[in-house]
Amino acid sequence: MKMIYSLFLFALLSSISHAFVNDFCVANLNAPDGPSGYECKPPNTVTVDDFVFSGFVAGNTSGIFNAAITPAFVTQLPGVNGLGLSVARLDLAKGGFVPLHSHTASSEILIMVKGEITAGFITPAAAYQKTLKPGDIMVFPQGLLHFQVNSGKGKATAYLAFSNPSPGAQLLDLLLFGNNLPSQLIAQTTLLDYAQVKKLKTRFGGRG
Amino acid sequence: MKMIYSLFLFALLSSISHAFVNDFCVANLNAPDGPSGYECKPPNTVTVDDFVFSGFVAGNTSGIFNAAITPAFVTQLPGVNGLGLSVARLDLAKGGFVPLHSHTASSEILIMVKGEITAGFITPAAAYQKTLKPGDIMVFPQGLLHFQVNSGKGKATAYLAFSNPSPGAQLLDLLLFGNNLPSQLIAQTTLLDYAQVKKLKTRFGGRG
Amino acid sequence: MKMIYSLFLFALLSSISHAFVNDFCVANLNAPDGPSGYECKPPNTVTVDDFVFSGFVAGNTSGIFNAAITPAFVTQLPGVNGLGLSVARLDLAKGGFVPLHSHTASSEILIMVKGEITAGFITPAAAYQKTLKPGDIMVFPQGLLHFQVNSGKGKATAYLAFSNPSPGAQLLDLLLFGNNLPSQLIAQTTLLDYAQVKKLKTRFGGRG
Amino acid sequence: MKMIYSLFLFALLSSISHAFVNDFCVANLNAPDGPSGYECKPPNTVTVDDFVFSGFVAGNTSGIFNAAITPAFVTQLPGVNGLGLSVARLDLAKGGFVPLHSHTASSEILIMVKGEITAGFITPAAAYQKTLKPGDIMVFPQGLLHFQVNSGKGKATAYLAFSNPSPGAQLLDLLLFGNNLPSQLIAQTTLLDYAQVKKLKTRFGGRG
Amino acid sequence: MKMIYSLFLFALLSSISHAFVNDFCVANLNAPDGPSGYECKPPNTVTVDDFVFSGFVAGNTSGIFNAAITPAFVTQLPGVNGLGLSVARLDLAKGGFVPLHSHTASSEILIMVKGEITAGFITPAAAYQKTLKPGDIMVFPQGLLHFQVNSGKGKATAYLAFSNPSPGAQLLDLLLFGNNLPSQLIAQTTLLDYAQVKKLKTRFGGRG
Amino acid sequence: MKMIYSLFLFALLSSISHAFVNDFCVANLNAPDGPSGYECKPPNTVTVDDFVFSGFVAGNTSGIFNAAITPAFVTQLPGVNGLGLSVARLDLAKGGFVPLHSHTASSEILIMVKGEITAGFITPAAAYQKTLKPGDIMVFPQGLLHFQVNSGKGKATAYLAFSNPSPGAQLLDLLLFGNNLPSQLIAQTTLLDYAQVKKLKTRFGGRG
Repeated sequence: MKMIYSLFLFALLSSISHAFVNDFCVANLNAPDGPSGYECKPPNTVTVDDFVFSGFVAGNTSGIFNAAITPAFVTQLPGVNGLGLSVARLDLAKGGFVPLHSHTASSEILIMVKGEITAGFITPAAAYQKTLKPGDIMVFPQGLLHFQVNSGKGKATAYLAFSNPSPGAQLLDLLLFGNNLPSQLIAQTTLLDYAQVKKLKTRFGGRG
Repeated sequence: MKMIYSLFLFALLSSISHAFVNDFCVANLNAPDGPSGYECKPPNTVTVDDFVFSGFVAGNTSGIFNAAITPAFVTQLPGVNGLGLSVARLDLAKGGFVPLHSHTASSEILIMVKGEITAGFITPAAAYQKTLKPGDIMVFPQGLLHFQVNSGKGKATAYLAFSNPSPGAQLLDLLLFGNNLPSQLIAQTTLLDYAQVKKLKTRFGGRG
Repeated sequence: MKMIYSLFLFALLSSISHAFVNDFCVANLNAPDGPSGYECKPPNTVTVDDFVFSGFVAGNTSGIFNAAITPAFVTQLPGVNGLGLSVARLDLAKGGFVPLHSHTASSEILIMVKGEITAGFITPAAAYQKTLKPGDIMVFPQGLLHFQVNSGKGKATAYLAFSNPSPGAQLLDLLLFGNNLPSQLIAQTTLLDYAQVKKLKTRFGGRG
Repeated sequence: MKMIYSLFLFALLSSISHAFVNDFCVANLNAPDGPSGYECKPPNTVTVDDFVFSGFVAGNTSGIFNAAITPAFVTQLPGVNGLGLSVARLDLAKGGFVPLHSHTASSEILIMVKGEITAGFITPAAAYQKTLKPGDIMVFPQGLLHFQVNSGKGKATAYLAFSNPSPGAQLLDLLLFGNNLPSQLIAQTTLLDYAQVKKLKTRFGGRG
Repeated sequence: MKMIYSLFLFALLSSISHAFVNDFCVANLNAPDGPSGYECKPPNTVTVDDFVFSGFVAGNTSGIFNAAITPAFVTQLPGVNGLGLSVARLDLAKGGFVPLHSHTASSEILIMVKGEITAGFITPAAAYQKTLKPGDIMVFPQGLLHFQVNSGKGKATAYLAFSNPSPGAQLLDLLLFGNNLPSQLIAQTTLLDYAQVKKLKTRFGGRG
Repeated sequence: MKMIYSLFLFALLSSISHAFVNDFCVANLNAPDGPSGYECKPPNTVTVDDFVFSGFVAGNTSGIFNAAITPAFVTQLPGVNGLGLSVARLDLAKGGFVPLHSHTASSEILIMVKGEITAGFITPAAAYQKTLKPGDIMVFPQGLLHFQVNSGKGKATAYLAFSNPSPGAQLLDLLLFGNNLPSQLIAQTTLLDYAQVKKLKTRFGGRG
């Protein structure tokens, strides 16, 4: 009986084998990407490890902001290619924070795991801010400038979900002060004092 | 006069030649695919036969389910690449049926051609079922489990339209009983009896 | 035992009841539509008949073109709302044809059922034409001008699938000669002779 | 000086006030939804609490599956409307599991928080399974049947991210055995034994 | 003859009248909007003026930045609803500029009309800057911070095209210094000096 | 201090370097395109000139229609790849015009710069026409047939914005009379007189 079914299935599978194409599209990270993501790896080379990432642990928070972000984007987790979804882990030491930043084409949800974080986002019409504890989550709509500050007495941990497999990160200070545009131009188009711009350019590695 | 126009047209066409790019994007089936489909064949290699499929005839219904599906998906009809559309032909011998299945990213419309088919789909809230005859059509919304049973006294034929050039086919039995996951795990996560799982694994070629 | 399960299920269903929202979105044809389609009918008012259309039969081909199109678009089949899919039936009496037309935001696949149809579409770079018989299908990519002519000796029937629940129909003659724009303007912007425009305006009901 | 700026800003804001419309679109849950989500609440009625959900805590796992899902979908978190993103919390008591299920229009990423979960998904070509511990994440591509089983010695907790603000949940047993379709039809289209269907219909509340 | 055609057309139009629905979807600005835009006005109330905007003229550049933006977004031009497109006019007096800003869900192309503008955008990896004169255009990809400065000796004028009918405008200074978040929080999450924040809050109307 | 920051930033940038991928996707015009556009150029080979086009000047209007279109589509401006946006410049000598045409997958906004243009578009239900002067703009919804005629006493110039980086151009006369389909077929499916078709085929270079 099994043989008969197998033959049947072989025929059935042959006739619909094209159908397997779009069940998933694991990124071939060695090939070029395009507007909708990376090329698909040949399905027969895909393994469960393309869908699993095992380094989703606390990063090193000993840096300047006392913050660490551990991404699980398409580079770490090629199975998310084309799926409009990725995640990251955020660790904040005491006093740590993520400065103002945005994601060009991604919304974000923050899930509080430990400690206390004061988070917010800003629109031209209003600012929305909340102090979050475990059991709280908060959404930051696409493209809006937002921040996360450890407002508790110890470490804080949160998980972040994104609506893009490569959400990017537009860190405002890095944009403003890490580039080589003339400081005078930055001062003019931000209305910041020239001295302020020069000072932060020194800290963020920008020239000009 | 014609020469003048031709010159004019040549100039016009040169200036807008890029514009031809997106009139269509016939799949280059020899190149890798990506999240939005296959690479486009060079337009000058495209012929009318990329847009025509001539094997849209009754398949062999002598198999286990007495059913045959003849697809015209991107593999058979490369002109549908990127267009969000494909079709298939369904033939059911007397007593034939398509077991419960779904399409991961495609809706489906069934057009009755001949005979009588009882079809339905199931949501967590309700089941929607109808006996269809020529003159009837029925839509199965994206991702929902559905079936088609020949409920008439002879052969039945229907045409199927899909909102995806590669709609795939998640045949429930093949998913549940054609894999190599432990039977105990299948039994647990389906709540089916272990003996039932073992029995069908034998029929559908699964191990474990 | 059943009661226990039912209680469990009731709780489970309550907790995920929002989830039912998007299983489908049957059009409320009495409400306004928007860029992505019609509002959803309340799910508890939906019946199987929202997903079934029973008038998919041959239309009257005694008109001018000896052609009849029987649509199953969102108006006839509200279950396709938001699904990017619809179908229609095409009947051509001997000598009948569908004049050149396009669909603003829909591709089309033609499935030959009976007789013989010569069909084609035109791009600025080339025309693609084929004579089709039962067993043949042909795709017309989005937005391109196309035609279908009964080239056989008797009636012809085909089914059409569209990648839009409301594919519209831009019948070229109706656009050019059914409007009230000045005939002189039509003649200028089509390069047709003025007399030709006036003649066809008379036939297609246009004024000016 | 401030007044001057304020006047300037008032003028600027007036001229671009329409621009505020699309910074976000918080769901008006009292209005009908459509294919792309709910109507937007008037921006001046939106508060930070539309973007925060504070009930993201462990659910009651004393039910049949010893599993609890706490959703933060558009119903609980109206700020995710139109953003293609939502999250949920999964708690599994010892021995608990989420039976096979799928989401019609959503991918899913599972973030392990505590304990051990064996998770997997199935395609027609292969099954992908992994035992996950804290530090691991796993993605389940859109529309594929998947399961999560507590394979550890104590409780397990995970967070789930979805690429849809209303991901739904197609629990296989509920689909197969919670409906009122005839048991004979279910048996035929699943190839399960009739007795098996009857047994599970009793447990899942289905009639027929 | 005309009558016959008219009858035919009447029948044809009746049968495909639903098709008119999606030829366009002019915004009903008095109805609520949703994630994909505004409800459509009833087609029979639409006039050519829904597709035309006649106030696309130089704005008043006597304000603080010596800049004026004249938008033609969905509010001014309801015919763009759902079309993914809008435009604006930019006038810069001598010395005028548009400070750093972004659009949450829109790319932008600037067409130089008169004078000289130095424009640029910034990514975390690099800044891209160019001095533009009539005959030049420049694209600013979605979500990226960009600026436009009149670098010429007289007035400058440019037209802007957007890939969103409501592109919004996230003016950085307004975001940072026009809100009521505590100055200390702004200073912390921007790394700006507290005194700098206070100074600009005074100018931009923010409190805290 | 700077070194410390630089180290920090280096680490931060390394951890999120994948994020740069999607800030933009400049077309690699030497690689094949796909349904969503061209492959991305490696970011480190991108320069500001990929985002700037400097040939946006008046074209030669001495041709047949006394019209010139200067496109800035993905071929001229590879930075628009994947962004859903492009522009063109339209120059009309006295008496010049753009004959009826459509864009298969793009809406269009016309910005009047100089002179007077009478423009319009046609749907099956109505024609919408307006005489435009500087200060006026007009939108032509996707897929609809439209025209632009210089109705003034001198030259006319306009800028065009498109919702597609490769909007194409379906010039009606070129479609109807530039192909090699039999004139009899064109006459039949347009209802034009055979002599009219032959006459225009001669002018537009079509054979048959």
